[in-house]
Amino acid sequence: MTLTETRLSGHRATLDQALDAIRTRAYWSPHPEHPKAYGESAPADGLAAFQALQGTRFELGQPGTDGWTGAEVSPYGPELRIEYPHVDPDVLLPAMSAAVPAWRAAGPEQRALVCLEVLARISARTHEFAQAVMHTSGQAFMMAFQAGGPHAQDRGMEAVAYAYQEQTRTPASADWSKPQGKRDPLELRKTFTSAGRGIALLIGCNTFPTWNGYPGLFASLATGNPVLVKPHPRAVLPLALTVRVAREVLAEAGFDPNLVCLAVERPGEGIAKTLAVRPEIKIIDYTGSTAFGDWLEANARQAQVYTEKAGVNTVVIDSTDDYKGMLSNLAFSLSLYSGQMCTTPQNLLIPRGGIATDAGPKSYDEVVADLASAVGGLLGDDARANALLGALVNPEVKGRLEGAAGLGEVALASREVAHPDFPDAVVRTPVIVKLDGAKPDDEAAYLSECFGPVSFAVAVDSTADAVELLRRTVRDKGAMTVGAYTTSEETEQAIEEVCLAESAQLSLNLTGGVYVNQTAAFSDFHGSGGNPSANAALCDGAFVSNRFRVVEVRRQA
Amino acid sequence: MTLTETRLSGHRATLDQALDAIRTRAYWSPHPEHPKAYGESAPADGLAAFQALQGTRFELGQPGTDGWTGAEVSPYGPELRIEYPHVDPDVLLPAMSAAVPAWRAAGPEQRALVCLEVLARISARTHEFAQAVMHTSGQAFMMAFQAGGPHAQDRGMEAVAYAYQEQTRTPASADWSKPQGKRDPLELRKTFTSAGRGIALLIGCNTFPTWNGYPGLFASLATGNPVLVKPHPRAVLPLALTVRVAREVLAEAGFDPNLVCLAVERPGEGIAKTLAVRPEIKIIDYTGSTAFGDWLEANARQAQVYTEKAGVNTVVIDSTDDYKGMLSNLAFSLSLYSGQMCTTPQNLLIPRGGIATDAGPKSYDEVVADLASAVGGLLGDDARANALLGALVNPEVKGRLEGAAGLGEVALASREVAHPDFPDAVVRTPVIVKLDGAKPDDEAAYLSECFGPVSFAVAVDSTADAVELLRRTVRDKGAMTVGAYTTSEETEQAIEEVCLAESAQLSLNLTGGVYVNQTAAFSDFHGSGGNPSANAALCDGAFVSNRFRVVEVRRQA
Repeated sequence: MTLTETRLSGHRATLDQALDAIRTRAYWSPHPEHPKAYGESAPADGLAAFQALQGTRFELGQPGTDGWTGAEVSPYGPELRIEYPHVDPDVLLPAMSAAVPAWRAAGPEQRALVCLEVLARISARTHEFAQAVMHTSGQAFMMAFQAGGPHAQDRGMEAVAYAYQEQTRTPASADWSKPQGKRDPLELRKTFTSAGRGIALLIGCNTFPTWNGYPGLFASLATGNPVLVKPHPRAVLPLALTVRVAREVLAEAGFDPNLVCLAVERPGEGIAKTLAVRPEIKIIDYTGSTAFGDWLEANARQAQVYTEKAGVNTVVIDSTDDYKGMLSNLAFSLSLYSGQMCTTPQNLLIPRGGIATDAGPKSYDEVVADLASAVGGLLGDDARANALLGALVNPEVKGRLEGAAGLGEVALASREVAHPDFPDAVVRTPVIVKLDGAKPDDEAAYLSECFGPVSFAVAVDSTADAVELLRRTVRDKGAMTVGAYTTSEETEQAIEEVCLAESAQLSLNLTGGVYVNQTAAFSDFHGSGGNPSANAALCDGAFVSNRFRVVEVRRQA
Repeated sequence: MTLTETRLSGHRATLDQALDAIRTRAYWSPHPEHPKAYGESAPADGLAAFQALQGTRFELGQPGTDGWTGAEVSPYGPELRIEYPHVDPDVLLPAMSAAVPAWRAAGPEQRALVCLEVLARISARTHEFAQAVMHTSGQAFMMAFQAGGPHAQDRGMEAVAYAYQEQTRTPASADWSKPQGKRDPLELRKTFTSAGRGIALLIGCNTFPTWNGYPGLFASLATGNPVLVKPHPRAVLPLALTVRVAREVLAEAGFDPNLVCLAVERPGEGIAKTLAVRPEIKIIDYTGSTAFGDWLEANARQAQVYTEKAGVNTVVIDSTDDYKGMLSNLAFSLSLYSGQMCTTPQNLLIPRGGIATDAGPKSYDEVVADLASAVGGLLGDDARANALLGALVNPEVKGRLEGAAGLGEVALASREVAHPDFPDAVVRTPVIVKLDGAKPDDEAAYLSECFGPVSFAVAVDSTADAVELLRRTVRDKGAMTVGAYTTSEETEQAIEEVCLAESAQLSLNLTGGVYVNQTAAFSDFHGSGGNPSANAALCDGAFVSNRFRVVEVRRQA
């Protein structure tokens, strides 16, 4: 089958809408959020497609396959029993490099349209991807569907739009004529070609394989680079499916499918470290631990390295005119996906003297108790709890959750939630632990990332103290998100000033259906790239502009 | 005196023209190249201003001045006898940081207009700057005037235009409304603020203090960062004058003049190394040796580091339909500023079997001899030689020139040129040395940068051999420029493919008044940022986009 020009050029209107959205930052998405929007048979078809993959070899037809590997176990219990190709980079990388010239010659628009076709085909299979994301990340179905489906596709398309815009800032050619007084002008004919840097390596994460993977993947591909996808060993399938779709589309469009390849490691093999320093690898996108992110930044010096690492997300609670709304908003934020989001609030800074609210003054203890009640209420029903929490993604998260209870007074204990469909799933409600900002012993706890369903209600001397702790936290530990509740103009300004100075994204007084841990592609930036939690933001010019270089050829006219 | 809004807003039209130029890449410059364009008394006024500075202390009113230093000696002979403030960074850096909030709050447009006022005042004093550049770099007056004046100002303005454009890709605010079916939409009010990263350090070079310094200086300042200027100890004055003008304009516009400060080192002090790893320094721009550039990239990990280092510029000579034009164009390129440009061709790759030309076939020996004659003819007259060559910038260049004669057969010997006005100036014509691309012993010579008036005529087995040597040179050693002469479509494509794959800027068949070592701001890229000679190009989106971060604040609407 050949991909028709008509089919590809049909995406041009979508690209234009995406370009418009990143300029206006108004709400926009071409990918429906509701499962029903994908057709009546889509849920069953998606599930069947996912089930059909189990117990099979995931063939991709890549060069350099020297074995098969794969040991994914769903956080909900079942083993996936899927084997993926294991690659010999000495064979695969040269094959990927060989694909570059034709992809470069295609130009920015054609590359963008091919990327959009990949996204369109992924979108059509969103139910299948949702199952794959659910059974690798442990996200509840609805979250796996939305965050792993349309929201990830949005972030991928956003990267394509930025890549296209960046590459077309310079025209493909220009005539240059410099006046020379009475003599003839100097005249040159110039061409400008955006040329990718080399092979890009995408190192995927366990919790959001598609959402955190698509921006780098599509930014690199759209700027002319082949992409080698190295998924987290516990979350291979969503990216393997992505690679398969991309290879199909590339081949149908007349390009070498080896522009997108998959590299899965054997247990304990650690191929990311080996691949990351190969001279052919010129771009790396990584989401994961600070330790490995720092290692990449320090050692993969031949590459442009984009990292999202750990951070300590903080909410300053100074005052509110909607106490109930604040509590329910925070309760949801702490509960969603059992706090396993890089954007989940960890530290809630509350003045020990209490706060002013529309329901009267509330002491520190009251605020913490009311928040605990709000979380308890939200998750009191097991069906609702399962729909919000999902399963713990790995035993380390469970270990941290259990350890957290020993760090201070427990304001809300975690409880086990039984899952009706998956008895082996480990589902837990969040724990809230009280800590004292004035106690040096507590600082080690609240100034480290404790990834998972753990939050610290940190008592501080005053709001001013909270603002200074916020500054220190963002500067030293980083933060993907900052939240604040205040009715004081002055406090708002002080918090804003900290976020501007330390480069953190701030959500103020959220009491409705938008949560501090969620961002919308085309409008919100995910991270700032300016504090220790990440060296790049999703998505901005800096995320795409160094993935290619502009090569100029000038000739006498 | 206060800078009026009218005066500032008068620059908006210029900014718009600059924005248009970087988009179309057509010829444009607001800075006249001809010395006469600056008024009848300007030359004498400029010279007088320069002379008045000699033997004085260069007061800047900076905090943290703990002494005075300066030992510049003109490459033309005279000592400048100017002392500059020596700074205590523990006092100066906090003062610079304190200037940030108001500068950030001014916004991208106001910052751009202030930068354009700085450039306008520098432009008005171009004759004074020309003297300062001439007597620190050793450039001949006309080159110091043009490259140190209007061309440097163009590059500064280009950086301002890119910075403005990049910061205004995202609107200052946006309303976001997400439909929720039958329920009320989710609504947020968002603000987006571009916030600089912190203090920028500009490490200046000896040969082009303003041309290579202005892009980084203005890119950082326009994106909201204070800039600490650390000039090369032999080329302080041009950047000291720049800092003084910038401080004046900033103060008049109501900003803290400490947004731009000067740090001059005592002989042998090496303050660049100390400053570069200070936590306050978040951006570094550097032009100079590969050794120190690599050190900065490896060690100043807290900063965004933009480097221009050594390279081995190469010209492939395959064939030409304008033999005479080729020879005179190359002769000029080799001679200008005695080859002390980072863009001067070093290796001329010539097939040992000779080349086809419009004047009949020419053997390797004939091409080299004819080029030697062309250089000899161009520089035969001492007045013309002095006007083109300038003085050798430092004793190391002289040492390399003298050593080059021992590397192979000398096709053109360097000769001393007497300067009528400056008897102590060391002026030398270029040397051309024959080397053999097939001899392993010669490779060490032609695969290292030999900065100065030294070119190697490298005999290669064939044009295909030249293309492969070009590829290896750019990949392993880097190149700021590549040139080629060929009448063959196939050879042209092969060379273009190398330049696209290895990221090098290519000039093809230049035989007139444009030279491979010259680039024009707003149209040509200087370097590619994609090979070992530089990690950034002047100027593109990548050069500005990581100097600031966008901080979002979102509130429920």
